[in-house]
Amino acid sequence: MSLNHVRVVLVETSHPGNIGACARAMKNMCLSELYLVNPKIFPSSEATARASGADDVLARARVCASLEEAVQGCTDVFGASARLRTIPWPQLTPRECAARINAQPGPAALVIGREHSGLTNAELERCNYLVHIPSNPEFSSLNIAAAVQVLAYEIFLAAARPVAQQEQQPPAAAEELERLYAHMQQALIDIEFLDPLNPRQLMRRLRRLFNRAHLDKIELNILRGILTAAQQAGQKHAKNAQS
Amino acid sequence: MSLNHVRVVLVETSHPGNIGACARAMKNMCLSELYLVNPKIFPSSEATARASGADDVLARARVCASLEEAVQGCTDVFGASARLRTIPWPQLTPRECAARINAQPGPAALVIGREHSGLTNAELERCNYLVHIPSNPEFSSLNIAAAVQVLAYEIFLAAARPVAQQEQQPPAAAEELERLYAHMQQALIDIEFLDPLNPRQLMRRLRRLFNRAHLDKIELNILRGILTAAQQAGQKHAKNAQS
Repeated sequence: MSLNHVRVVLVETSHPGNIGACARAMKNMCLSELYLVNPKIFPSSEATARASGADDVLARARVCASLEEAVQGCTDVFGASARLRTIPWPQLTPRECAARINAQPGPAALVIGREHSGLTNAELERCNYLVHIPSNPEFSSLNIAAAVQVLAYEIFLAAARPVAQQEQQPPAAAEELERLYAHMQQALIDIEFLDPLNPRQLMRRLRRLFNRAHLDKIELNILRGILTAAQQAGQKHAKNAQS
Repeated sequence: MSLNHVRVVLVETSHPGNIGACARAMKNMCLSELYLVNPKIFPSSEATARASGADDVLARARVCASLEEAVQGCTDVFGASARLRTIPWPQLTPRECAARINAQPGPAALVIGREHSGLTNAELERCNYLVHIPSNPEFSSLNIAAAVQVLAYEIFLAAARPVAQQEQQPPAAAEELERLYAHMQQALIDIEFLDPLNPRQLMRRLRRLFNRAHLDKIELNILRGILTAAQQAGQKHAKNAQS
């Protein structure tokens, strides 16, 4: 597997050991393209030691004078952010970020900020998305190599998934799901599977199942179609019976 | 959130910096119980520096003389292994490991081996499960703090999931799923939703949806029941029409 369309961009990293650890985390997950925006010290024996064999990633690393230069040509730019920003910027989980990278073949960049201060607002605004790694709200700042490890792990998993699971359709909206569940309940009453006087846990179980599946819009429409067909199958024959 | 029933056990760690980095990764993901089996150097200023504020985790860390002592009282012991062992031991992904920890409330241990040589076979045999982090087959050995970060991240995500998703039922078996899909196809033909002469992508899409949901046995039985009810709804009225 090659994930060389995904670059990792480290902005103004202070500790060369972190650069080496990032290179190792990348290579562990088949990433190879490392961009360094104004690193404090690079190259360095500490980076090489911590890379622990990912020397090829360090050797091909490109040192850039600006974030602009490092993300040039990228279709999607994801900014890692420990803080939940109040600015209205699209925010993704690592898994959503990986799914998006996997869904489009263009070059993508994961931008990782400084050890202590992260990315500036101006830098975040250069990103299409913010990625927030879920974490302890009272201790949310991951080491930068640890953050790269989590993001790269999710990207690796997404890329390793069977192709059938990778087609991306827009996800169903919450209100569409509610209409699906209302329709489902009525159809199950109509076909006499659900007794409205004794509903038990049925709808709760079905909600849990379909919530877990993260339906896309096409799947939701298929399920609505099946429910309507089941209702009509009964009604059609009922009408025949009456005529 | 507190995950203090999950301990991280580091076996004969050489570099104190890695102990500190593990403590930080743990605290980032709400883990607090660190056990150190014969660490080369501990405590150490390097560990404290790399813990970067997770001093409380280091301060409560217990130094043990043996793996036995460190995993005492644990219901489940998971051994992290970079190598795909030939020994017939139950092997889990990090996500499966997290689901299992989440499903049972007893104390659990994640056992992480030495930086260069991992865990010995005798140590692995003390574990109920091996956990393998999916990775580049040509560069599969993660730094130990990076491995702790990935495992702790999955455990944190699993614990943060809504309680409704956490009830564990036995998963449906592959052959049960195949019978479900065969039944589904017939029922969709019966209610005239699926045209057998022009099936298009319908069954493929439904398979993908339900495979993704990882049905348990109860859910599978509910779906079978709904399909039967839909078939009967049509037949019942059809019989009325004939009589």
